[in-house]
Amino acid sequence: MADLPEVVLLDFWVSPFGQRCRIALAEKGVPYKYREQDLLLSKSELLLRSNPVHKKIPVLLHAGRPVCESLAIVEYIDEVWPQAAPLLPRDDPYGRAQARFWADYIDKKIYGCQSRLWKLKGEAQEQARKDLIEALKTLEFELDDKPYFGGENFGFVDIALVPFTCRFLAYEKLGSFSIEEHCPKIVAWAKLCKERESVAKVLPDPDKVFEFIQFIRISKFGAK
Amino acid sequence: MADLPEVVLLDFWVSPFGQRCRIALAEKGVPYKYREQDLLLSKSELLLRSNPVHKKIPVLLHAGRPVCESLAIVEYIDEVWPQAAPLLPRDDPYGRAQARFWADYIDKKIYGCQSRLWKLKGEAQEQARKDLIEALKTLEFELDDKPYFGGENFGFVDIALVPFTCRFLAYEKLGSFSIEEHCPKIVAWAKLCKERESVAKVLPDPDKVFEFIQFIRISKFGAK
Repeated sequence: MADLPEVVLLDFWVSPFGQRCRIALAEKGVPYKYREQDLLLSKSELLLRSNPVHKKIPVLLHAGRPVCESLAIVEYIDEVWPQAAPLLPRDDPYGRAQARFWADYIDKKIYGCQSRLWKLKGEAQEQARKDLIEALKTLEFELDDKPYFGGENFGFVDIALVPFTCRFLAYEKLGSFSIEEHCPKIVAWAKLCKERESVAKVLPDPDKVFEFIQFIRISKFGAK
Repeated sequence: MADLPEVVLLDFWVSPFGQRCRIALAEKGVPYKYREQDLLLSKSELLLRSNPVHKKIPVLLHAGRPVCESLAIVEYIDEVWPQAAPLLPRDDPYGRAQARFWADYIDKKIYGCQSRLWKLKGEAQEQARKDLIEALKTLEFELDDKPYFGGENFGFVDIALVPFTCRFLAYEKLGSFSIEEHCPKIVAWAKLCKERESVAKVLPDPDKVFEFIQFIRISKFGAK
């Protein structure tokens, strides 16, 4: 991979996992080459070679060496470029454990529930809707009156969750509910995050995200 | 929680996630109070208060503060007691990212497949069997000829995987296959790990584990 630039991100525009990496790189001010991957028709040889285990984006190539799995990538970025914008609290193992706990919660609950919300129908979809609201309320409770999840500074948990906010419109349309009604603090936090250049330039328009999700629902899961 | 000792582990004897924490504490030589939890009949008030989000073991209480999720706990133990037996490679962000990738793989694939193996029947169970063998072979390929996953030293990925080795007998009985036939290196690695006191004193007898799994299969999933 000698012909590759120093930092390359293999990604797909709508992926919340890829968006995490892009936001982390932007927060750190790391220049990188973005390589959009064609996941729907054919995966590139570079992607298959870089992540032979999962064959999935995002993959961060740093000096030719691949790092896979979004949370591992964000933590890697934080460790390799520690100067600007620390994402996990330094010298605070307890704070780091808490941050890892919540990032894991987001992966398991928010991602899990949203997938069920658009794959399933009838009662199973209704259960997914309830579980998603419950998970968002748990995050609302954890956020409480802090500006960001880790306190005063934008960090690891914010990066883990904020890509899902451009899917809130899709959740509301598919689940017929208002996130603001249940979780006003999360909605205010999402607005605050969106004021950051790192977030604003990465997150796509919620309408386009909803359109993409509808396309996937119809083409892959036969939804109407 | 002023009446609690400095380090307390809320755990359940057969849990591979709890076993990870016990092995990590033993590797570090950290004294702690083990508190077996009754998960089948009623969860303790201490467990519910310490992990209100998931209400699950293991929970590590350190100076009264709870840390939850086994991989976050093991990483916390490594950071708080860094002197003895480093589990993640120091000063090597790439090595740490790789270790986190593989620990995540074990959680997703090995745990996911084994659960399907004993919950499901017929064709779905057969698929789980195939997926489990495939996942073990992927780990066999990653281990290659190294003594441990991280190289010369017992570390994070070994701790993540080794508790599942006392379930190998159950996998073989339920799936009618030989792990040694497919993954001789993993079996040799498991034997090497078992020579460590930290592992030997934590892992229960595979026959007892199989008995427990059969009890759960029959009582919870109606298996015969």
